[in-house]
Amino acid sequence: MNGGEAELEKGGGLSSDTKAGAEPVSLEELRQRMAHFARERDWEQFHSPRNLLLALVGEVGELSEIFQWKGEVPKGLPGWDEAEKAHLGEELADVLLYLVRLSDMCGVDLGKAALGKMDINARKYPVGQCKGSSKKHTYYSSSDGNAAANEDATALAGSNDGESKSSDC
Amino acid sequence: MNGGEAELEKGGGLSSDTKAGAEPVSLEELRQRMAHFARERDWEQFHSPRNLLLALVGEVGELSEIFQWKGEVPKGLPGWDEAEKAHLGEELADVLLYLVRLSDMCGVDLGKAALGKMDINARKYPVGQCKGSSKKHTYYSSSDGNAAANEDATALAGSNDGESKSSDC
Repeated sequence: MNGGEAELEKGGGLSSDTKAGAEPVSLEELRQRMAHFARERDWEQFHSPRNLLLALVGEVGELSEIFQWKGEVPKGLPGWDEAEKAHLGEELADVLLYLVRLSDMCGVDLGKAALGKMDINARKYPVGQCKGSSKKHTYYSSSDGNAAANEDATALAGSNDGESKSSDC
Repeated sequence: MNGGEAELEKGGGLSSDTKAGAEPVSLEELRQRMAHFARERDWEQFHSPRNLLLALVGEVGELSEIFQWKGEVPKGLPGWDEAEKAHLGEELADVLLYLVRLSDMCGVDLGKAALGKMDINARKYPVGQCKGSSKKHTYYSSSDGNAAANEDATALAGSNDGESKSSDC
């Protein structure tokens, strides 16, 4: 599942150590394919930003249905059969494809936005301050370190409600 | 906004005609960056599939907030100021980054899943049958063509509630 991480740790190039045998799929490729798909079907008339956003919300609902009654689910989904995993892949894909199309219809370069947001998150959550903690960035950016102590992290990649909620940065 | 589409129409390579000056951002690159980001902060303990799914749902809520009181919004967001557009980019990115991380923790290759789902959609929605229509694929795949006539398209890329709801495939 995380086979590519080791290479990254070793300082390998990000774009070269992709999963075995597969060309990396870019967001730009998906954007173009979605645009082509819609244009071929004369569906551009339906693809207003809010229509697409509601479509995305619908797909997030379908994705949530897969997990809703399962209780905690371990990483890697041990015990799930292939049909369930395939269904999950389709719902994850549906969310992604609407997200790509919505971004395009809003004039947002999604890949660039994602890299930019990761930079923002890295500044919000310095490793030395927040290691092992799920607290929101406001906890340690406030003048009073305890001012937001009861807030969980909700900004990206720190949005956790896990076991160590009460641990400090 | 759709500058890359023309090249696709002309048969240009999908991966080469990216937006001006930018390297295409791949899903694999984002997957690796997110994994590295979490590992550096010892946040893997929080990144169970259902935690990540709920985090994603939270970000979809933040994305929805941006559009919630605006009424219809034209493509390209004319009249939005740069700060609003930047905020939108961040929320779109947050959804994407959690989606990438969730997929990784589930062992799903998101890029492969997206391409596979586009193939499925192309089969579900043949151009000749559904051009200009927002009907769900069940409308024309049922033995009785009218059996699902009142259903709107909800499968990906056909999920519309637009003006031509009543038009046939």
